This record gives sequence, structure tokens and C-alpha cells, in this order.
Amino acid sequence: MAVPAPAKAVRALEATAAALVLLWCVHFRGGLALNSPTNKGLIFNVHPVLMLIGLIILGSEAIMSYKTLPWNRGTNKIVHLVLHAVALFLGSFGVYAAFKFHNESGIDNLYSLHSWVGLGAILLYGLQWVSGFATFFFPGASPTLRRAVLPYHARAGLVAYVLALLAAELGFLEKITFLQAGAAGVGRYSSEALMVNFTAIVVSLLGASVVLYVTAPGQQNEHILGYSAVHKP
Amino acid sequence: MAVPAPAKAVRALEATAAALVLLWCVHFRGGLALNSPTNKGLIFNVHPVLMLIGLIILGSEAIMSYKTLPWNRGTNKIVHLVLHAVALFLGSFGVYAAFKFHNESGIDNLYSLHSWVGLGAILLYGLQWVSGFATFFFPGASPTLRRAVLPYHARAGLVAYVLALLAAELGFLEKITFLQAGAAGVGRYSSEALMVNFTAIVVSLLGASVVLYVTAPGQQNEHILGYSAVHKP
Repeated sequence: MAVPAPAKAVRALEATAAALVLLWCVHFRGGLALNSPTNKGLIFNVHPVLMLIGLIILGSEAIMSYKTLPWNRGTNKIVHLVLHAVALFLGSFGVYAAFKFHNESGIDNLYSLHSWVGLGAILLYGLQWVSGFATFFFPGASPTLRRAVLPYHARAGLVAYVLALLAAELGFLEKITFLQAGAAGVGRYSSEALMVNFTAIVVSLLGASVVLYVTAPGQQNEHILGYSAVHKP
Repeated sequence: MAVPAPAKAVRALEATAAALVLLWCVHFRGGLALNSPTNKGLIFNVHPVLMLIGLIILGSEAIMSYKTLPWNRGTNKIVHLVLHAVALFLGSFGVYAAFKFHNESGIDNLYSLHSWVGLGAILLYGLQWVSGFATFFFPGASPTLRRAVLPYHARAGLVAYVLALLAAELGFLEKITFLQAGAAGVGRYSSEALMVNFTAIVVSLLGASVVLYVTAPGQQNEHILGYSAVHKP
């Protein structure tokens, strides 16, 4: 099975976003480190990289998996749940890096809208994974119940994904605003600031592409989220 | 026709969001003014109030209109397009207030992610209104073409709406971050900061409720955006 064209577009956006966030953290922000006695900013840099690769990129691939993978439904399901598990693991580690950076730098935790939305996103993501695992994998609900729950599983999953996207957008804005307002003195129209804004635009295009792709009209037999094009006269 | 329960919940969120943003701008930020020789912040305050009441609240009502209004399709359509026109007018005036505040305070324009996303949202909103007007109202396309375009009109409209929501969320974060970092010295856990975050959460709940409501499963005969619940075995 060839990869569908919309999935190819999504993957180009994923690769662009990953390259841009790495360019930002390595070239402009000095690189990544789990421990750093002098430059605590290096610990922070782990956060955007892991959140983007985890919840956003692997999350996107997991969401699209039933439409993009060539195997049977059972195999695709295992890939779907494993991708989401890795996404959650990387996301949790990314959240840990943000707290570690705050704690070692004497910065308050959990006061900003970014942190509230982000924590809500990862909690919902985790709840969604556990309930999906129990319903569709092990121990697994009855076929009737699975069929009834599936549209809610798919829609709740998209809510968690969109919340993660919102957290990412808020995070890009928050970090560059700190860098512009603080001692770093990053210029408002500097190449770094423009690149961070551009990265955020790429991530929002990625998210919009994934949601529109998996809910595309006229595919109601191909995927549980396919829109109906039936028109009430 | 009674107002459906989800629409009642949306209206409660709309009223809460409007009350909170007014409380913020009037009680914490000194009120609203179109001209102010000394306190330019009063000109800024016009911006969040008009954007929220315009693009978000009237936009939400316009999007739900085919499901909430008791009249025939032709009348509902006129209310739908008039609500969106008023939303666009208030939104454009709100954007003007932001530029006026910047220009009179010597602040750069259009450098932030909020401004980029917000400008994209209102441009897409305007394009969507003009193309919808021409296709579905005057001069109006053929019935066949209208039927073909309608799902795209509805989905593009939701994209513009979600972009407006994203701009609003970014705006709340940006403004409170400026107030926390700047001379205003607003505390990170102050009642004002918590209230602004809470307002942003109410707005995101409002947006999620509207999108989930108009795309609800099992209503494919009732609305063009109804999800299909057909399951591929």
C-alpha cells in the first residue's frame, strides 16, 4: 500500500518542524543537556524537543496509523498503541525536564497558561491511552461495547491531540517572549524570533493537516472519524 | 423549538467568558477607551473585549445557528451570515484598537506569534465570509455546486474559527506575560493572573464545545458536519 498523499504532506511538515526545533535549541540556544551546573538553559532545551517529537510527531503518526499502515487491523492497532505509548513516555520526560529546569533555576512552577494547558493535555493523553488499552486491547471489552465506544475514543483522542498542539503553540510564544523581555535581549524581528514563530506556524499546519485528513468527508467506510457528506435539504 | 442542551452549555460558557474579560479590562486594567492621552492601556483594553465578543462569541452563535435557530433554512441562513458579518466587523475594529495602542505607545507591530495567527485568522474569516456569501446567497451558485461546496464551506469555517480560538489563547498568554515581566509587576500567582488563565480555559472549553457539538456523531442527516459512526470491521 502506497502512503496516501495527505500523509506524505504531514510527514514533510513533521520533518520540517523537527529540524527547526533542533536548529533552534542547538544553534541558537546552545544545545541540550540533562545536567548542567552552569547553563540551566540547556536542561530547558530538552523540553521543546521531546514534546514536539513525542506528543506532536509520534502522536500524529499514531493518529494516522489506521490510514497509513499497510498491515491488518490487529497489527496496525499494536503500532497505534505503541506509538502513543512512546509519545507519552517522551512527553512525560519532556515535562520532567521543564520542572527540573525551573527547580534548579529558582523559577516558579505551574503559574502559566502554557503549563496548565500542557498538564491538562498530557493527563488527558494518558487517561485516553489507559482507557483505550483496557477497552480495545487488554482485557478488551465486548465487540458491541467496542463498537459503541470507538467514535468517542477517536474524538476524545483528537481533543487530547489538539490540546497538545495548543500547549505547543503557547510554549513557543511564551519562551520567545521571555527571551525578548529578559536579559537574553533577543530582538523582536531577529532571525531567532522569526524562526520560532515560523516553527509554530509549521506545527499548526501539521496539526490542522492531521485533523482534516483523519476526518475527511466521503470516507465514512474507511475510518471511524470520516465526515458524512449527507446534506439536509 | 427548544434550545438544545449543548447550545445552552455553550451559552453559559459565552456569558462566563464575556463577564470575565470585562471584569479583567474594567476592574484590573482601568477600563476601555478609544482615545486616551495619558493611559494608552485603555485603548488596548478595547482589543480583547471586541475580539472575544466578535469572532469568538458571535462566531460561535453563527456556527451553531443551523442547529439552534427555530426558523426555516432561508431565515437561519440570513441570521448565520449577519452574525458572521457583525463578528467580522467587531473583530476588525478590535484589530484596529491593537494597532492604535501600539502606534501611540511606540510598540512594534506584527512581530509576535499572536499577531501572525490573529491576522491569519481574521483574513481567513473574511475570505470565508465573502466566498460563502457569493456561493450561498448572492449571486449564488447552482444547487449542484452549492451541495458540492457545502462540506468544504463548513470545514473551512471551522478552521477559521479554531484559528481565532488559537489567537485568543495566545493573546491571553502574551498579555499576562507582558504584565508579569514589565513595570506593571503583576504577580505570577496573583488573582489577576489566575483569572486571565481561567478566562482562557473557559474560552477553550467554549471552542471545544462548539466544534464537538456541530460535528457530533449520529447526526449526519441533521447537519453537514455530522460525523459518521460507520465502523470498518
